Amino acid sequence: MHRTRIRIVEDALDANNTIARANRDDFDRHGVTVLNLMSAPGAGKTALLECALAARPPGVRIGVLEGDVQGSYDSDRLAGFHVPIVQLNTDSGFGGECHLDANMVRSALPALPLDELDLLVIENVGNLVCPAEFRVGEDVRVMVSAVTEGEDKPLKYPLMFRACELVVVNKIDLLPHLEFDLERLLYNIDQVHPDVDKIVLSSRTGEGVDAWREWLMRLAVRAAEGVAV
Amino acid sequence: MHRTRIRIVEDALDANNTIARANRDDFDRHGVTVLNLMSAPGAGKTALLECALAARPPGVRIGVLEGDVQGSYDSDRLAGFHVPIVQLNTDSGFGGECHLDANMVRSALPALPLDELDLLVIENVGNLVCPAEFRVGEDVRVMVSAVTEGEDKPLKYPLMFRACELVVVNKIDLLPHLEFDLERLLYNIDQVHPDVDKIVLSSRTGEGVDAWREWLMRLAVRAAEGVAV
Repeated sequence: MHRTRIRIVEDALDANNTIARANRDDFDRHGVTVLNLMSAPGAGKTALLECALAARPPGVRIGVLEGDVQGSYDSDRLAGFHVPIVQLNTDSGFGGECHLDANMVRSALPALPLDELDLLVIENVGNLVCPAEFRVGEDVRVMVSAVTEGEDKPLKYPLMFRACELVVVNKIDLLPHLEFDLERLLYNIDQVHPDVDKIVLSSRTGEGVDAWREWLMRLAVRAAEGVAV
Repeated sequence: MHRTRIRIVEDALDANNTIARANRDDFDRHGVTVLNLMSAPGAGKTALLECALAARPPGVRIGVLEGDVQGSYDSDRLAGFHVPIVQLNTDSGFGGECHLDANMVRSALPALPLDELDLLVIENVGNLVCPAEFRVGEDVRVMVSAVTEGEDKPLKYPLMFRACELVVVNKIDLLPHLEFDLERLLYNIDQVHPDVDKIVLSSRTGEGVDAWREWLMRLAVRAAEGVAV
């Protein structure tokens, strides 16, 4: 029974990868660089997007695909930035899935003005497990780890920390009020993903946020200039 | 394609419920009350278990089934309490699933000394979506929501908040350092699950923890006395 389950999972991931490649071809054809933003619930993905959108340079065109099980709370939060936002709910025809997959993203493509974008940020469903297993056609994957979640998360959810090109460590304004060893977290991240890029910040106080904005805008500007990631 | 996916999901949940009932029959036959403990990663499930185990009354026999994708970090944390602990990893033969299901729990039953337990606490994988969809044969479900995750979580993950008999709101020692409206969170919980039991606490400072211990011990004592939940 277990072997059957694993085969079904592998077949599903194969099918997903095929659709992810089709999405990637479409993104490439329109010259859009795509970032898949992942984290546990409440780690601060939307707040990081707010920081980035507030300081985007003129001429850099950013769009957002908001993934949630249901509701449009994050889309509503971002509405004031006047960028194209498409809401994708996994409970509408997708069985309430705990992650975005390539097929769901594909279903949203017609609603996205790809020709008018340089960078598309896909905010995934808050979850440290399955989003890391499903490519959606993205160029780059970023995960956010809040210090309130504990130093052990890289060891308990290694696939997520291994799947990304950048780990953003958020909520460091709370460090004085936690029994939390930042060096231990960074060590644990390196244990599962040696030398991955890391940015340590607080989206609330703004400490370290410049590095995140610069990282993201470098990606966006290179996309706008047509340079491959 | 979407309809097929939903049918597959429904079939899987039907099969799961059948096995969950078999688990429940086994638990009932041995007189064990079973609690399914769920939350997002890092909300404090293990810390709440530590609080409870440290103050369990003599004669109340508690066991723990620890669910993780991989590793045994929480089992190691609890080892000093000298209660039966069985580690269940979803990446060993279960495809790295993001939740426990009835079949996984069933596979762990032979390792559990059911005849020597009054209360079994199953600590689920940290995830606000799928654990709520899969009954494992439990009598009671408790979810933990940390105030660091934001007030919007009941609205974004309603199934989880709706599936449980008790919501524990944890990490209230951090309230002075957050822009967080506790009344708004409690209101949002009631929006998706009117009048569900709620306990507000900090497992770190101990504030409110007595209410949690009493709630759990009432369950355990009733189980020890053979009273149906």
